[in-house]
Amino acid sequence: MSSQKIAVMGYGVVGSGVVEAFYNSLEGISKKINDDVDIKYILDIVSHTGTPFDEKFTSDFEVILSDPEVTVVAEVIGGLKPAYDYTKRLLEAGKSVVTSNKELVATHGAELLQIAKEHNVLYLFEASVGGGIPIIRPLRMCLIGNNIKKIAGIVNGTTNFILTKMFEEKMSFEDALSLAQKLGYAERNPSADIDGHDACRKICIISSLISGEHVYPDEVHTEGITAITSDDVSAAAKLHYTIKLIAYCKQLEDKKTQVLVAPMMVPPQSRLSNIKDVFNGVVVEGDAVGEVAFYGRGAGKLPTASAVVSDIIECVKFAPTSQPVFWKDGAHDKVIDYKQGEFSFCIRAQKTQETLEKLVSLFGEGEVTFEYDNQLLFITKEIKEADFESALNKLKQQGEIVNSYFRVLK
Amino acid sequence: MSSQKIAVMGYGVVGSGVVEAFYNSLEGISKKINDDVDIKYILDIVSHTGTPFDEKFTSDFEVILSDPEVTVVAEVIGGLKPAYDYTKRLLEAGKSVVTSNKELVATHGAELLQIAKEHNVLYLFEASVGGGIPIIRPLRMCLIGNNIKKIAGIVNGTTNFILTKMFEEKMSFEDALSLAQKLGYAERNPSADIDGHDACRKICIISSLISGEHVYPDEVHTEGITAITSDDVSAAAKLHYTIKLIAYCKQLEDKKTQVLVAPMMVPPQSRLSNIKDVFNGVVVEGDAVGEVAFYGRGAGKLPTASAVVSDIIECVKFAPTSQPVFWKDGAHDKVIDYKQGEFSFCIRAQKTQETLEKLVSLFGEGEVTFEYDNQLLFITKEIKEADFESALNKLKQQGEIVNSYFRVLK
Repeated sequence: MSSQKIAVMGYGVVGSGVVEAFYNSLEGISKKINDDVDIKYILDIVSHTGTPFDEKFTSDFEVILSDPEVTVVAEVIGGLKPAYDYTKRLLEAGKSVVTSNKELVATHGAELLQIAKEHNVLYLFEASVGGGIPIIRPLRMCLIGNNIKKIAGIVNGTTNFILTKMFEEKMSFEDALSLAQKLGYAERNPSADIDGHDACRKICIISSLISGEHVYPDEVHTEGITAITSDDVSAAAKLHYTIKLIAYCKQLEDKKTQVLVAPMMVPPQSRLSNIKDVFNGVVVEGDAVGEVAFYGRGAGKLPTASAVVSDIIECVKFAPTSQPVFWKDGAHDKVIDYKQGEFSFCIRAQKTQETLEKLVSLFGEGEVTFEYDNQLLFITKEIKEADFESALNKLKQQGEIVNSYFRVLK
Repeated sequence: MSSQKIAVMGYGVVGSGVVEAFYNSLEGISKKINDDVDIKYILDIVSHTGTPFDEKFTSDFEVILSDPEVTVVAEVIGGLKPAYDYTKRLLEAGKSVVTSNKELVATHGAELLQIAKEHNVLYLFEASVGGGIPIIRPLRMCLIGNNIKKIAGIVNGTTNFILTKMFEEKMSFEDALSLAQKLGYAERNPSADIDGHDACRKICIISSLISGEHVYPDEVHTEGITAITSDDVSAAAKLHYTIKLIAYCKQLEDKKTQVLVAPMMVPPQSRLSNIKDVFNGVVVEGDAVGEVAFYGRGAGKLPTASAVVSDIIECVKFAPTSQPVFWKDGAHDKVIDYKQGEFSFCIRAQKTQETLEKLVSLFGEGEVTFEYDNQLLFITKEIKEADFESALNKLKQQGEIVNSYFRVLK
């Protein structure tokens, strides 16, 4: 039985959740790990009174950094500044750091993991993807006996909420976004969510983890959901498909990776088609295990806190002989140009007498063809994006009106 | 960089899968754990020639036991004999043991975990529940910051296949069972599956893990699926419900646990309603994380092997300061008498003019009432099983014909 002290940096939504979840489950934790653990400090720039933790608050980072009793620090400040600097200095001081900060991990993960390795401590971030849903640890531990072939996930709750409202209540994108903002699911400046940047950070973390080399956000083609119209929704619904913002990564030959974030048409048989509102889901395909899926709340105070606490406890139990998570700052040509990737595409075109004929002559027989009103839906076989685009241009040159197109998730 | 040797005991479906998955993913494993690991022995009573592993085979358990180079042993023999004796002796000799053997873990888990603890080694069994789906490790590690309130799972693929065929192709139970046997999903003697014993062992393991005290199979009320008729299927379908064999466990006040295995009516909004064929799914409710769900192949050669390999690697990386899984041989009054548990029940009765009236007077207003042909479906509010049974007897005494009833999963 040993005793270890923890510090929580940040007392916003996630930070206060971490403190709450930690004390709520402390009895069970102590029994399970047979160790005595406690939170010694909570770092916040404003002082809090009237909480049961008043005496734990400090506004001075140096106090935490210089206290040898503190072995594990939860960084739940978010953003790059001052989180990046704090994390570096804590790891260099021989303290393990756990975080929900996907921006920091996606941007500086390889560097921070290297520092952690050199100082024989851990840098963990289960909460950075999928909130409370176990994803990172299952990937790095439970599925280690697999070559992971593909991962597709709904990893942004805000956009999933908006798309759910567009499909189930026929709301426009703008109205659904307003509702999400009203309910606190979307920020006043919603760009990080609706433009796909948040999902991009998360798929970078997942791709880095499974490939062992850092994938940076600027290497990943990212499309948001702002251009999706009610007509797109109606068209997808005709085929019993939905449209979801999909974070996607696939291992290719020659150790290359296909990584992208884009709204995709999702067929009804997919495990992702039925994930609604702010919920997240991730489907993993391994060569041994086949398809496994994870589902739950991808954000929120206590779900995220649940994941942070699990990382805290792994650090407490950590022995320096282990080396549970690592990736290096890899080759920057690992991620292929997205135009070299292959997908099926669903084209929605204005139907004229010859439209289908032209589509077939350009793309070959479609996997699905569906006509309604004056619209034609046509799902191509798998085709390289560059070839798709050039065929699409030819179609337009032939005078056909293409209203929209989406990649189709398989 | 250290070097560790592994032995695999048993070379049936799972054993050969372990060897295959291990070597398929060895490159990735070595990179990730920065260790040199190899399989040194494969134990089987018959000799195998023509495999790439010919020189690794031995039929002598003592060779493995007495080889100090072997630090981790995968027991994939199954059953209690000789697996129980072998496992005990290996743990006592200071070797970690990992297994897919749910019967052994459910029957002797507390004793074997105690021996492992005393000898500073691990006894792990990720593969014993849900095949390759990460469940045990997420429960003991990722969700440690939660008080787990409830778990409901489809953990037997054979019965789920049979029930899927009964619902989707209107097969009788007997025909669906025959088909499952023909396809190799069911044994010639299918009792362990269809009578619920396999699911019972799995929920015992899960319950023991989350409560910290061993729950033994004979403490768990277990019903199979043999009595389910085509009329039951039609009735459930009228409500858009399905019937699934549910392994269920709920933490109650006073550290008591409600554990049972029974076919239940599953409403369409449940994450378990859409899990088909031989697939498994487990829904976990934690006080911090809310509802999370896991899905995948619950059995089969490589999926199960995937989980065994993950345990092997955890043992390889294990440091004696950790203590990652333990439960004790608990109080035998921890599991409540199932009749003291509460459920909603769905009653299917022959409809007469007064049936509904009598139902309401005995059970109060129903949550759902549905009439078709000459049948009446009535879902009660939550009620103690003992009270349900006595009210049901009164109903019968009043001359009403009750065709069947099921617990309803909420």
